[in-house]
This record gives sequence, C-alpha cells and structure tokens, in this order.
Amino acid sequence: MAFLPHLQAVVQQVSGAIACGVMGFDGISVENYQAPNTTDDLELSIAWVEFANLLGQLQKAAEPLKTGAVTEVNINTDRVLTVMRLLSPEYFIVLALTPEGNFGKGRYALRLAMPKVKAEL
Amino acid sequence: MAFLPHLQAVVQQVSGAIACGVMGFDGISVENYQAPNTTDDLELSIAWVEFANLLGQLQKAAEPLKTGAVTEVNINTDRVLTVMRLLSPEYFIVLALTPEGNFGKGRYALRLAMPKVKAEL
Repeated sequence: MAFLPHLQAVVQQVSGAIACGVMGFDGISVENYQAPNTTDDLELSIAWVEFANLLGQLQKAAEPLKTGAVTEVNINTDRVLTVMRLLSPEYFIVLALTPEGNFGKGRYALRLAMPKVKAEL
Repeated sequence: MAFLPHLQAVVQQVSGAIACGVMGFDGISVENYQAPNTTDDLELSIAWVEFANLLGQLQKAAEPLKTGAVTEVNINTDRVLTVMRLLSPEYFIVLALTPEGNFGKGRYALRLAMPKVKAEL
C-alpha cells in the first residue's frame, strides 16, 4: 500500500503537475500527493469526486460498446488539466496539471506509474 | 451550416483519424465525416451518443466546481481514441482516431478547427 512514492515521482517529473492521487470510483481518496507550494484554491478533491462519479458511469456505459474498455480519460478545463487511468474496476489514478503544464509528459508518466501503483493495490 | 469541409480537413491532416463530427448533447449527430476505407465495426455513432450524455453531465457537474469550464475531454479505449471539444452549451465537436493515431496532432487540429466550426453554428 506504498502508493505515495510513486505518486510523488509522477508529480516531480512532470512540469506543471499539481497533484497525483489514487481514488475509488465511490469518490473516496485512497492516497494523494500534492506538489509543494501549490494552494488548493482549485478544490481538486471536490472536482475529483465528481470526475470519479462520471468515470464510473463511463466505465459502465462503455461495457456494451464495441469501442473496447476505457483506458484513459482526460478532462481539461480553463484552470486545470486532468489525466485519469483505470487501475482496476474499483480504483483509478489521477494527475492534475496547470493549463501550461506538460500534458504529454503527464500522460506518459502516469502510464509508466500504472504497473507500479497496481502492484501496491 | 457548411461543417463538412472543416470536419474533412481535420480527418485528412491527422494520421490515424477515423471520423470527425458535430454533435448535440442530446446525442443527435449534426454532421459527420468518416475517413474513406474505414469500416464502422466500432459503431462510433453509438459510442458518441453515450459520450454526449456523459459530456452533458460533466458540463453540468463542473459548473459549481472551481476548476473552471470544461474545454476538452478525451476518452481513450483499447480500440479508439476520442477527442471532444465544447462548441456551445448545446453542441460539441468530436474526433476519433485509431490507438496508433497521432493523438497530439488530433487535439491540435481540433482546436484549430473550433473557431471555423463555431462560425457555422
């Protein structure tokens, strides 16, 4: 259950990363690492609960579709970029970046972190 | 209402692009351009109706959040990458690519096409 070093590694290697966390589809945060010197004026945890709900619905909705299983979802707003990847039917990993952050690197870092975080589940 | 040339331009300039369309949040397709030589075994139109529903919910859910208005949503599955951008409170533009497609170029092309498609709304 040592998620924190992996989450911290993701945040540290991605320019503009704000926070990285493991969450349940029930909206409950398992672990979260926030970059130092960032304020939580975005109230990310509240946004992530909403996103968890949507992602859970999407996962169910996508089951009968021929497009296959959902692997990654990005929700980008005026103020924050969000990358989410499914860890299991119950959990997902989420990374938040500033709009100027390195989105491509963020997606890449999260993909690399996946097997390590999964191994801790 | 001449959406088609813009949708076609997006598909033609992005490697791996399958289809590009304008859709309402009610799930009804306004216009759609499908790349030649692609079969519709993915049943994209059905997937897009599901995504439209989710995107509509997300738009509503994000309103009270401090993360700002949703600008772009990507839903990536085993078999297809999907890039969606909001055109108006009623409509969005959507691009589908193969998993090997140029995702970054697709996001870029869709962003560039936005003002042109918006002007036709």
